[in-house]
Amino acid sequence: MDVVIMAAGKGTRMKSKLPKVLHLLAGRALLQHVVDTAAQLSARQVVVITGHGAMEVEAAVSGNTGASAGFDINFVRQEPQLGTGHAVQQAVPLLRDDGMVVVLSGDVPLIQAATLRHLIAAAGTDKLALLTIDFADPTGYGRIVRRGDVVQAIVEQKDATPVQREITEVYSGIMALPARQLKAWLARLDKQNAQGEYYLTDIVKFAVADGVPVVAHKIADATQVAGVNSPVQLAALERAFQSKVALQLMEQGVRLADPARLDVRGQLHCAQDVSIDVNCVFEGVVTLGEGVKIGANCVIRNATIAAGAVIHPFTHIEGGQPGSKDAVEVGAGALIGPFARLRPGAKLGQAVHIGNFVEVKNSTLARGAKANHLAYLGDATVGERVNYGAGSITANYDGAFKHRTVLEADVHIGSNCVLIAPLTIGAGGTVGGGSTVTKDTPPGALTVARAKQVSIANWKRPSK
Amino acid sequence: MDVVIMAAGKGTRMKSKLPKVLHLLAGRALLQHVVDTAAQLSARQVVVITGHGAMEVEAAVSGNTGASAGFDINFVRQEPQLGTGHAVQQAVPLLRDDGMVVVLSGDVPLIQAATLRHLIAAAGTDKLALLTIDFADPTGYGRIVRRGDVVQAIVEQKDATPVQREITEVYSGIMALPARQLKAWLARLDKQNAQGEYYLTDIVKFAVADGVPVVAHKIADATQVAGVNSPVQLAALERAFQSKVALQLMEQGVRLADPARLDVRGQLHCAQDVSIDVNCVFEGVVTLGEGVKIGANCVIRNATIAAGAVIHPFTHIEGGQPGSKDAVEVGAGALIGPFARLRPGAKLGQAVHIGNFVEVKNSTLARGAKANHLAYLGDATVGERVNYGAGSITANYDGAFKHRTVLEADVHIGSNCVLIAPLTIGAGGTVGGGSTVTKDTPPGALTVARAKQVSIANWKRPSK
Amino acid sequence: MDVVIMAAGKGTRMKSKLPKVLHLLAGRALLQHVVDTAAQLSARQVVVITGHGAMEVEAAVSGNTGASAGFDINFVRQEPQLGTGHAVQQAVPLLRDDGMVVVLSGDVPLIQAATLRHLIAAAGTDKLALLTIDFADPTGYGRIVRRGDVVQAIVEQKDATPVQREITEVYSGIMALPARQLKAWLARLDKQNAQGEYYLTDIVKFAVADGVPVVAHKIADATQVAGVNSPVQLAALERAFQSKVALQLMEQGVRLADPARLDVRGQLHCAQDVSIDVNCVFEGVVTLGEGVKIGANCVIRNATIAAGAVIHPFTHIEGGQPGSKDAVEVGAGALIGPFARLRPGAKLGQAVHIGNFVEVKNSTLARGAKANHLAYLGDATVGERVNYGAGSITANYDGAFKHRTVLEADVHIGSNCVLIAPLTIGAGGTVGGGSTVTKDTPPGALTVARAKQVSIANWKRPSK
Repeated sequence: MDVVIMAAGKGTRMKSKLPKVLHLLAGRALLQHVVDTAAQLSARQVVVITGHGAMEVEAAVSGNTGASAGFDINFVRQEPQLGTGHAVQQAVPLLRDDGMVVVLSGDVPLIQAATLRHLIAAAGTDKLALLTIDFADPTGYGRIVRRGDVVQAIVEQKDATPVQREITEVYSGIMALPARQLKAWLARLDKQNAQGEYYLTDIVKFAVADGVPVVAHKIADATQVAGVNSPVQLAALERAFQSKVALQLMEQGVRLADPARLDVRGQLHCAQDVSIDVNCVFEGVVTLGEGVKIGANCVIRNATIAAGAVIHPFTHIEGGQPGSKDAVEVGAGALIGPFARLRPGAKLGQAVHIGNFVEVKNSTLARGAKANHLAYLGDATVGERVNYGAGSITANYDGAFKHRTVLEADVHIGSNCVLIAPLTIGAGGTVGGGSTVTKDTPPGALTVARAKQVSIANWKRPSK
Repeated sequence: MDVVIMAAGKGTRMKSKLPKVLHLLAGRALLQHVVDTAAQLSARQVVVITGHGAMEVEAAVSGNTGASAGFDINFVRQEPQLGTGHAVQQAVPLLRDDGMVVVLSGDVPLIQAATLRHLIAAAGTDKLALLTIDFADPTGYGRIVRRGDVVQAIVEQKDATPVQREITEVYSGIMALPARQLKAWLARLDKQNAQGEYYLTDIVKFAVADGVPVVAHKIADATQVAGVNSPVQLAALERAFQSKVALQLMEQGVRLADPARLDVRGQLHCAQDVSIDVNCVFEGVVTLGEGVKIGANCVIRNATIAAGAVIHPFTHIEGGQPGSKDAVEVGAGALIGPFARLRPGAKLGQAVHIGNFVEVKNSTLARGAKANHLAYLGDATVGERVNYGAGSITANYDGAFKHRTVLEADVHIGSNCVLIAPLTIGAGGTVGGGSTVTKDTPPGALTVARAKQVSIANWKRPSK
Repeated sequence: MDVVIMAAGKGTRMKSKLPKVLHLLAGRALLQHVVDTAAQLSARQVVVITGHGAMEVEAAVSGNTGASAGFDINFVRQEPQLGTGHAVQQAVPLLRDDGMVVVLSGDVPLIQAATLRHLIAAAGTDKLALLTIDFADPTGYGRIVRRGDVVQAIVEQKDATPVQREITEVYSGIMALPARQLKAWLARLDKQNAQGEYYLTDIVKFAVADGVPVVAHKIADATQVAGVNSPVQLAALERAFQSKVALQLMEQGVRLADPARLDVRGQLHCAQDVSIDVNCVFEGVVTLGEGVKIGANCVIRNATIAAGAVIHPFTHIEGGQPGSKDAVEVGAGALIGPFARLRPGAKLGQAVHIGNFVEVKNSTLARGAKANHLAYLGDATVGERVNYGAGSITANYDGAFKHRTVLEADVHIGSNCVLIAPLTIGAGGTVGGGSTVTKDTPPGALTVARAKQVSIANWKRPSK
């Protein structure tokens, strides 16, 4: 089986420079949703028909998931755009004569693989199967014209008679059919219609004429066939998608304070007894261990958070790809936030505490280390039970290179210290508050770099 | 009157290790809602029937509100669980023969005391009164079977005939009846039914047989009898509850920017002309004085905020129990935030300003004191009109003990200072920016601890 | 044409000390909405009838938009309040005999100018035109009584017969009519009705009696004639208004992650390909250039953000009036946040980076300057490519005056520095981490002010 995805449209109503099929739904391009769904169908190849913004579209989806899913993505260009039939004609050279073809739309992102499998089953090896739906208001859609139960034609809105316009069953833009017949029928299309375009839907008439059975697989879930033509439709579909995600998470046992205020743009994996407070956003791949609590207003991208960790409100986590050195990991029982920021490469061990106004980047903190207040840890290796004082900063950047700060186990760093990397504070050492440390310090030592305190009596502050 | 609460169920569909009745709605366990409502009924005792997670359940509710409400909470265990009738049988030894019994469900949290009073009134001293409701889709509920107007039986879904399944009036799981008769009828229950369980609802048949009047008190508000069996139902009920809270607040005159984006998990007391912007969360007991403005995205737990104070967006307040030393108090006309954090024991006087990226913990700030930028005040006593500089830190923790910092009236602390406690800065004193202060300073003095500034000409920074 | 706005009511159900018409909808007083709409009608004058809180009301709207819109706002007071007819009687001395009068309500804020223009056209020069609407539940509204199609009267709820109460067409409180006749009819009003008040609506009867045609202009959009009498109604109208704003933005091409979680209180101007994540609030005048991305949970007031800038989540921007020295400007391609705060007078050039826990006030940053972590820049002039280190602070305030800090091009400031203004760091200069700088430094120099680092071996920290 081959899959053809039509993705050549401009999407004028999007009022955007971005090609329509590259607009994001739940963080993924519309077309990527369709490609990812096609990947679940065990297709031999996916042929994407591009046109407007073709180079941009091809760059955005090629290689993303195709290779790993075990099929090829090929692109053909439709220039100029002379209708849906003309679009699919461009794919003909790439389609093998044997097997079936499924035609999808790059701007209909939420079609499900299970639905397509039913459609493909309905087509068998010798039928034309159309995916259809009843719309209370079918205006603008191609109507399914039947004689008795048998599908006779799809009639486009502009070509429909008043009686046909009363029909509520419409064509979704998705079909499955034998490749050999698709090719033959495409060759017979003409432009004798209201829009002067080659309609793909005209092949229904040819099928009827040729005695090929046309079957309609009608579904009830409108979101699966909803197309995106405007920002209003995109936002509506985004919310429909997010509602579904929230429902799925709750059905797995996740407790959501408000299902209408959750955004998942990627994959959110939750163990048992996870709870998520209002207004959180998850991006990339986020994994939450058993009993993890996510506070209100958190934004979390690419992170693995182990069992029992508590992420307090207003925490911002932005990890790199899971598995990479830039991934963010939060250990079991860790306490993070409020107002904490974990950046790429933050690896926090068990029971680590990161408090308010603390930023951690490319740093490893071992079990029980704490940085509770107004601090920066960048390019640091922090040992067990280290206490990193309020306002302290690792000066990891000399203007050209990044250097590493090593705080061995049980080190205590006082408040408002500057640790000028490369630097090692030996195990159990203490750095007095307000010190700027430039040289390594021995284990167990107290290190200070501090000027003498002098008081000048009866000092008058400036006054107005 | 005695109240019996059934709280033995496992709640398999919650997919949680937590017993179902301990799941939180608006910050309180489901069972606690029911117990708190029972507390309004002047009951002699509340008998909670536990089973799954019995120890956990008993620990979670015992002593919480029972004593203060003037009644006893007693627990009986139902092991194994052989049905609702079997559950109530466990309570029999604790029930006195005189008086009435009200049977409630620990997973039906939003039943209101006023409704129960009507039910109890309907029961009088000699009737069985059932709380019922009409459901458009009654599937799964026990149907109220009447002959004419007279209730004849409750028939469980699995035992209902097709005709009975058409009945839309269903039993809520809540009843009131004479204790003596409850006991007698419980003794007559058997398991001859579709589920092989002792049904509490079978007592309706005994009542009818014994000539005891059975009355139905039908209500219209479905949230009052909504049970929680899954995270989806829990979230739906949470939102229903929050909508009601928002409505009540608005009816008192509180201005809400978006009633759908307010979460109150506890008590929110508002004086006149309070306004609350979008997406705020209130927990514990929060009291807002006249004209208080709460900005967008604030999270506030246990705090008393006096008249005219303005809490800017992104403020996080986390007080201890109101009245305790850990309570958070914000004085009249104070300005807090954005991005401020007030932790337990922050006591802010009139017109205090706490600005962005400032954390205050266990500290008292007198009238007019200011800490406007990136600072930490912990275990400090701050006098009137003190100006606490940007980036300054009280070093209150020596690794083992917490020490106190005292800033007397009219002190100015420069930027990025470290105040190493225990420490007193005398009244009117000034500390120069960048100073680490370890010793007390006299009133009116300028104190600095600062190294000499040296410039090295033509210095080359590292370059790549 | 003259416009009369009734704004004398107390608004008891608002339960507020603020006069009803001064309550805010989308950041503007209800009355201001009506005045701003009147300003679009090319009226000669707007007469506002005040009463409860008259001084407060007059102070709040006078001079706000009247002068600039080219018409006068005049106020008359209605004391005591004896009905709507009595209210308009107070305006009579200010109304010229020639021309038309439009009567509006100060608590009906969302009436649109286009609707009023239709109403005025319906009135022509000699008719009484009433704005009406059909309500499914008309309870409480004045009913439009017709004979055939001809309007005969408006009957108030309390005076309506049972048959009249069945009428669903109601009067919106808005009318247009010839000034001369308005004056004549007002003189004929009496209080012979259920409420003992002078009803403005009684003039309909006089018009009928005088043979003046009465026409009804009926609209379908209930939000345009919705009055605000309670916080519940105010919140409902706020959300209706915000939904409409969100829709308009999307129709212009703006991508909204959730149209239900956007609040615009003022003007939001967006170029092409702007995207706005969930839960953002815009106030004042905000202008977003092409391709600007606004992250989740941002609060932005009065700012101009140039093309390609990215505002990360949890950014708080609070500018002064656009065009003023306090305006906030963000340059093309700048990266701001998360957890950044831009205060009045922050002017950021192209590709400036402001990172987490950084506050900028009254400071100019030239192209490519960066302040990425936990820092304060106040009253500073920052040159191109300056790197401002983590934790560094401009000490701009000596307790009485603000002073300026100048960082010339290519300066690097280390971590946790204090720059005591007035101060200039010469071009290309470097300041070592932890330095407190009090004197100007020459270009190209490395400046440090740092105490000697000393380690004391085998130091025992305090222990419990």
